Amino acid sequence: MNITGDFFTYTGFRVTNGTLPWPRWNLIAIKANMEAFPALNGQSVSYTKLVFPSKCVNPPHTHPRAAELLFVLNGALPVGFVDTAGKLYTQDLSVGDMFVFPKGLVHYQYNLGQSPAIALSAFGSAAPGTVDVPASVFGTSIDNVVLAKSFKTDFWTVQKLKAALTPPPK
Amino acid sequence: MNITGDFFTYTGFRVTNGTLPWPRWNLIAIKANMEAFPALNGQSVSYTKLVFPSKCVNPPHTHPRAAELLFVLNGALPVGFVDTAGKLYTQDLSVGDMFVFPKGLVHYQYNLGQSPAIALSAFGSAAPGTVDVPASVFGTSIDNVVLAKSFKTDFWTVQKLKAALTPPPK
Amino acid sequence: MNITGDFFTYTGFRVTNGTLPWPRWNLIAIKANMEAFPALNGQSVSYTKLVFPSKCVNPPHTHPRAAELLFVLNGALPVGFVDTAGKLYTQDLSVGDMFVFPKGLVHYQYNLGQSPAIALSAFGSAAPGTVDVPASVFGTSIDNVVLAKSFKTDFWTVQKLKAALTPPPK
Amino acid sequence: MNITGDFFTYTGFRVTNGTLPWPRWNLIAIKANMEAFPALNGQSVSYTKLVFPSKCVNPPHTHPRAAELLFVLNGALPVGFVDTAGKLYTQDLSVGDMFVFPKGLVHYQYNLGQSPAIALSAFGSAAPGTVDVPASVFGTSIDNVVLAKSFKTDFWTVQKLKAALTPPPK
Amino acid sequence: MNITGDFFTYTGFRVTNGTLPWPRWNLIAIKANMEAFPALNGQSVSYTKLVFPSKCVNPPHTHPRAAELLFVLNGALPVGFVDTAGKLYTQDLSVGDMFVFPKGLVHYQYNLGQSPAIALSAFGSAAPGTVDVPASVFGTSIDNVVLAKSFKTDFWTVQKLKAALTPPPK
Amino acid sequence: MNITGDFFTYTGFRVTNGTLPWPRWNLIAIKANMEAFPALNGQSVSYTKLVFPSKCVNPPHTHPRAAELLFVLNGALPVGFVDTAGKLYTQDLSVGDMFVFPKGLVHYQYNLGQSPAIALSAFGSAAPGTVDVPASVFGTSIDNVVLAKSFKTDFWTVQKLKAALTPPPK
Repeated sequence: MNITGDFFTYTGFRVTNGTLPWPRWNLIAIKANMEAFPALNGQSVSYTKLVFPSKCVNPPHTHPRAAELLFVLNGALPVGFVDTAGKLYTQDLSVGDMFVFPKGLVHYQYNLGQSPAIALSAFGSAAPGTVDVPASVFGTSIDNVVLAKSFKTDFWTVQKLKAALTPPPK
Repeated sequence: MNITGDFFTYTGFRVTNGTLPWPRWNLIAIKANMEAFPALNGQSVSYTKLVFPSKCVNPPHTHPRAAELLFVLNGALPVGFVDTAGKLYTQDLSVGDMFVFPKGLVHYQYNLGQSPAIALSAFGSAAPGTVDVPASVFGTSIDNVVLAKSFKTDFWTVQKLKAALTPPPK
Repeated sequence: MNITGDFFTYTGFRVTNGTLPWPRWNLIAIKANMEAFPALNGQSVSYTKLVFPSKCVNPPHTHPRAAELLFVLNGALPVGFVDTAGKLYTQDLSVGDMFVFPKGLVHYQYNLGQSPAIALSAFGSAAPGTVDVPASVFGTSIDNVVLAKSFKTDFWTVQKLKAALTPPPK
Repeated sequence: MNITGDFFTYTGFRVTNGTLPWPRWNLIAIKANMEAFPALNGQSVSYTKLVFPSKCVNPPHTHPRAAELLFVLNGALPVGFVDTAGKLYTQDLSVGDMFVFPKGLVHYQYNLGQSPAIALSAFGSAAPGTVDVPASVFGTSIDNVVLAKSFKTDFWTVQKLKAALTPPPK
Repeated sequence: MNITGDFFTYTGFRVTNGTLPWPRWNLIAIKANMEAFPALNGQSVSYTKLVFPSKCVNPPHTHPRAAELLFVLNGALPVGFVDTAGKLYTQDLSVGDMFVFPKGLVHYQYNLGQSPAIALSAFGSAAPGTVDVPASVFGTSIDNVVLAKSFKTDFWTVQKLKAALTPPPK
Repeated sequence: MNITGDFFTYTGFRVTNGTLPWPRWNLIAIKANMEAFPALNGQSVSYTKLVFPSKCVNPPHTHPRAAELLFVLNGALPVGFVDTAGKLYTQDLSVGDMFVFPKGLVHYQYNLGQSPAIALSAFGSAAPGTVDVPASVFGTSIDNVVLAKSFKTDFWTVQKLKAALTPPPK
């Protein structure tokens, strides 16, 4: 195989540089991880580009294999994470600011502003993985009793959350 | 310091061997990790003993630094975990069975039976850590808007869940 | 391949749960390592179940790739290990007690009691390996001169030990 | 110590956001590594922000402890690295493009354009380190004979390079 | 502290370069590990120099934290190791030959020749450690019953081996 | 495959034991790494034998994946390395001396003497890799502008160095 500089280059982030008609309501997360960018294999580093429309939230989630170092490229971004003792740490980030979400902890971001926010996140792994908390918990068929007891709530609430979070059948 | 065999011995699990008047409703989790058992420092292994009263649930949680290998000592124990693609894997474990919860994924256990269930879990780390999902998400002061958007629900539901899951002030 | 919860479950320890007509004199060691339980691949943890008939010894051995955290399920179990400075650490374990054998050191267990002892050992590796000292040293064809000089003894003693410890040809 | 979200926040990159009267000729490299941003300790990730005035070069260098994943924020940036077999890989990066410099290999960047170029580099280590090749080789007092033989040149050339690259005494 | 090149230099192997009146019967093992040579801290490499008088044996032993790569500087050296399946691998090494003893396995060397043999061993750890098998097993106060059962021999033989291998009180 | 002791043995260093008509001017570096000696796979250690004719230099280079622990077998050897702060550390090594070049730093050796010098270097990796600085920088087609600016010199000097260091086409 004739390997050239192209193999070590990733251009998949260009798509969000311009004035794209992006979905107005949803988070766009483009991952430059080992799967999308094979040259990262063995290099223990990767990026994700996050584009937040106004009022958009990146729901609570964890990355099983890496810490995340988020840098704000555009807009402002309130963020937070919860440590294993249950303490919440928050920050309102401005353009050019950076925030580290330590390995494996639940965290979120929220674009409170009127204009889009864009962030670049670096990970100390070529395959950090993502565990989306609402989808993992209420978007799967975990037994209603387990969920009602875990969230100290009633079946009706569990079923309402499941209805909202279960992805439609393909 | 005169180190003897005692330093390498941990007896903290004895407490649940007998017919203790344990709390009838709550999970008992005794951790033999590096903090409780300093000889584990550098040895990359630890145990937790889990005692489930009838109908008790160990809520969805993750361990940031290790896989968990659960062995059922008494009773029967339905368990499950969700992978990063959102697929649920479940099993109904009997006495003597073992189940592995891969590193960093959300998982739970639930004693459906009438009698207590007891399990021993091994971890490939002396400090695996635990992130309790309901407590991390609804037991902290994460902004209601973030939670309502993340769980695709209303403020009222978020506040009801927060009221149930926020620990009382000490 | 259709992976289900069964892939993450291991039931090979059930065999010793009941009143099996097990060999009265020999140690039974059932290994739930990566070879026997492929879901452990990459998870850095494994178990071995040890069943000791009365008066049975697990001879001095090492695990090249992990520490061992032994938990006594039944009976009582004297154990010991030797550090690299040649100091012996011992303990008489009771049901529910735990002992850690640090990485790579020579250790043994001995069921001094009248009834069987059962232990569960966790390892911080999916493939800890075992080096059996008597078998490695006297059960192979290492030159008699090397062994006589190493153990500061005579040929006759070396040959007697070899005769006892060399496995019969298959 | 009362740890808050501020501990996990780094604002040192703001300085280059505006129209700073930066040095017109020299590279500005601001490092958000463990030394500058202690929350990165144990998180295996860090950033450096690079601001290249027109015609500015980041000389050939290596990072002993991490790969570098460079993302172009502004301008255009030709880059290159040399593998251990002596093969050169180059690329002309545009805004939004990304390039990975594998662990430990010699690499450089060069802003060929008329306007400043700005890049953000992520590293899979909180302390990647930098070995500047011209400064290491000709900016120290390595014996002239060693350098002349290594670079297959004459003393006069070595001394000229040393004169240009040796930092002035402080 | 004023660190110079001396900090990175170790001269402790010079002692065996000349025609020393070394002990005629015993192995001389000089260790350039992290303890003796602090600059090795964090560098994951170390050396041991081994001087074997004629007919001298380095008894069966393991290194808990590293493989050993032995290079013969002088003389000839039969060597061997036993894998975890109990298979013996041997070789008769000549001057300039190299042999690798894989991580954690029992191995030995034996100078069968009339003149001294000298070897240099490299380890992929700055603190490989050594577990001497005869000393660990018969040079400590491990219970005679444990040893007799482990080596399938009688008390008298165990006591004879203990008498030979137990170090004299200091 | 029938693996024997031969698989764990490497004899490629014998070639330089005798009075070979070696090239009078060039360094001979024989590498016993994973590629040349497959038994090193997974063992995290390797050797290189270096034979320096009189006045021969091993040019400034780095090893991306390991520290180097050099031991002088014959002759005398001045050596040096430069840390990431640009400080040079040197030593004049005699027979039997050892020097550690820390991970990833630029270093060199130079046989100032009249007779050949021979050294054995151990690495804490089975595949340490080598980045030759003169060849990487001036032996590839890196843009002349980049090199002139990096080395603060003129095009003529860059071209002279390139002419001397670029390998002839094969």
